[in-house]
Amino acid sequence: MQRILIDMDDVMADTSQKILNMVNDTYNSHYTKEILIADAQIREEYQEKYQPQRHRLWEKGFFRDIPLMPDAQEVVAKLYEKYEIFVVSAATEFPNSLAEKFEWLEDYFPYIGWTHTVFCGHKWMIRADYIIDDHEKNLINFQGKGLLFDAVHNKHITDFQRVNSWKDIESLLL
Amino acid sequence: MQRILIDMDDVMADTSQKILNMVNDTYNSHYTKEILIADAQIREEYQEKYQPQRHRLWEKGFFRDIPLMPDAQEVVAKLYEKYEIFVVSAATEFPNSLAEKFEWLEDYFPYIGWTHTVFCGHKWMIRADYIIDDHEKNLINFQGKGLLFDAVHNKHITDFQRVNSWKDIESLLL
Repeated sequence: MQRILIDMDDVMADTSQKILNMVNDTYNSHYTKEILIADAQIREEYQEKYQPQRHRLWEKGFFRDIPLMPDAQEVVAKLYEKYEIFVVSAATEFPNSLAEKFEWLEDYFPYIGWTHTVFCGHKWMIRADYIIDDHEKNLINFQGKGLLFDAVHNKHITDFQRVNSWKDIESLLL
Repeated sequence: MQRILIDMDDVMADTSQKILNMVNDTYNSHYTKEILIADAQIREEYQEKYQPQRHRLWEKGFFRDIPLMPDAQEVVAKLYEKYEIFVVSAATEFPNSLAEKFEWLEDYFPYIGWTHTVFCGHKWMIRADYIIDDHEKNLINFQGKGLLFDAVHNKHITDFQRVNSWKDIESLLL
């Protein structure tokens, strides 16, 4: 059985959307992913607003109510029938997130369970046939096939096969 | 640089001693590791006392004040000079333990940091040259060299190279 490592933030969970909502609530602004993708100047302006809010990722509760990425639940359930699935999240940077991320997984992906959940920093020492991740750094030293999950922050990366959605992953792997 | 995976419970941290203390405090008993190793009947009696207390491993606080394993601090610091070290703890079974284990590591092994800390269930997909672990299940499917850290519960295992202490590890790897 082939093994797939699946990242949480910005792959299973729409963490960028939660951050956008946080920034918009704080500044009474109306940023959207579409606007950020379309306009480099607005993207820079958004980053300046986001940076002073970034500490809130370390606060209790932040990771407990991240919205699901569209179609993630449906496609991961199908992948689970044909592949060995490990959820691999670089979560140890946010110690308060660890229990919250586990509870989040229990809510939406209860069949994965603690045995197949990995909270780590680097991912390069974990072996699998595929990794689905939004960060180039996690694909560069990966020894299997890396699939870059499309995100606002990775539009400039061209070295890896890009998947734009869970429907894309379904077509590719199922 | 060769990579070593180091387990926490009963390798870096003397979790069995904390459990012994918990049982002794609860039953006003005087079990010691030495007695449990020496006498199979007392071991069985101890297990009967421990089982109804086992739920306390899931409670908040349990993993925050585990005593250090003798010489772990000194020898891990030396290994860190010559090897790439990842702490790999099967901690996702105990979601409340995750932040506590991270804080514990920050106290005693602050140089390891979040990038080299892994909380997981299975360990078989993590590749390294060595794993130091007290559980046979984590050595069986490991693709490098497994070193079984001596513990009351693994005295019967003969399939792996046994290390009796951190001083043993120092002699072997340094």
